[in-house]
Amino acid sequence: MLLCDIGNTSFHFYDGVTHYKESVSTFDIDNVTQTVYYICVNPNVIDVLTCKTNWIDLKPFVDYSKLYSTLGVDRAIISSYFENAVVVDAGSAITVDVMRQGEYQGGFIYPGVYHMRQCYANISSKLDYEFSFELDLDKIAFNSKDAISYGYLAPFVKEVKAYDLPIILTGGDGVKFKQLFKEARVDELLIFKAMKKVIDVNGSPA
Amino acid sequence: MLLCDIGNTSFHFYDGVTHYKESVSTFDIDNVTQTVYYICVNPNVIDVLTCKTNWIDLKPFVDYSKLYSTLGVDRAIISSYFENAVVVDAGSAITVDVMRQGEYQGGFIYPGVYHMRQCYANISSKLDYEFSFELDLDKIAFNSKDAISYGYLAPFVKEVKAYDLPIILTGGDGVKFKQLFKEARVDELLIFKAMKKVIDVNGSPA
Repeated sequence: MLLCDIGNTSFHFYDGVTHYKESVSTFDIDNVTQTVYYICVNPNVIDVLTCKTNWIDLKPFVDYSKLYSTLGVDRAIISSYFENAVVVDAGSAITVDVMRQGEYQGGFIYPGVYHMRQCYANISSKLDYEFSFELDLDKIAFNSKDAISYGYLAPFVKEVKAYDLPIILTGGDGVKFKQLFKEARVDELLIFKAMKKVIDVNGSPA
Repeated sequence: MLLCDIGNTSFHFYDGVTHYKESVSTFDIDNVTQTVYYICVNPNVIDVLTCKTNWIDLKPFVDYSKLYSTLGVDRAIISSYFENAVVVDAGSAITVDVMRQGEYQGGFIYPGVYHMRQCYANISSKLDYEFSFELDLDKIAFNSKDAISYGYLAPFVKEVKAYDLPIILTGGDGVKFKQLFKEARVDELLIFKAMKKVIDVNGSPA
């Protein structure tokens, strides 16, 4: 069974054994002839896929009854997978979603590492630094590089920790954040596990 | 006396009565013939001004002994102005600096409103929203617009409040943040008051 999670920058495939990414800008979807179960949050890709009969959209099978209707399908499907968790999905955007006793509590969206770095660089060449993830969150900064890293990371990390729930890190940059959330679980394949669960619950929706 | 605070996007002048801005990209500094006391954090402008004899840089007169040497002169001069405060200077970048009992505690840099909005829009057209400053900070979001506003504003505001010091808002967007820091004092002319104090302490350094 081939699964695909389509985001703003890549097609992320999982065939049950390995996972791999293809760039949204260069990947030719007609190269795939087998059945693909997918979710897609990329508005430029959604329309193209609708007319491909071997690409099966899982969104209609996701239970939105306890969520809000405009919640991205990737966030919806992952949130529904947990009873108690803060899920931090660190991709081009970082989405944070909070589940408590099986009820969706809400969430928020923060810029991902790449785009936030560009954002600082666009403000001034003096703010063009790589972020340091070895930051001491209890110590505000005493040099410019740390001032950027602290600004991007410290308020965000404190916000996520304040929910006092198990923290799950996923997405391409999930592992980077492990240093700041030492107690967190990293699961790169979480989205595929959640997609598989939707398929199992609904039967293969082909 | 003409004062000028030069940032990444504008020359901000104050003549003791009115203040006004000129764009960095279009302003001709040779239009000013009188003496100007200035501070400048814009690397593209600093070199040009050095050879203009009527433009007097205040940076050499700022006491950096309790600060760090790469701290922007605007942040240095404002921090030195207070004994106990968190200063939030909301311009193209938002700088936050903490003074406690006259000692600089450190600070951090966060993207300003305009650049952060661009940052979200660059990630996806679905994230292209104006921020809502009428946000309830105790309630994580249940729709996409609030998810962006919460992500940008809530962790930041909580961080600033956590220092438990008087909050001073300044910079072009300072007044926008007043809704989120109800107890804060807004002072658009703070930088000029701080510059004036440096001049008064040192005599007119012409």
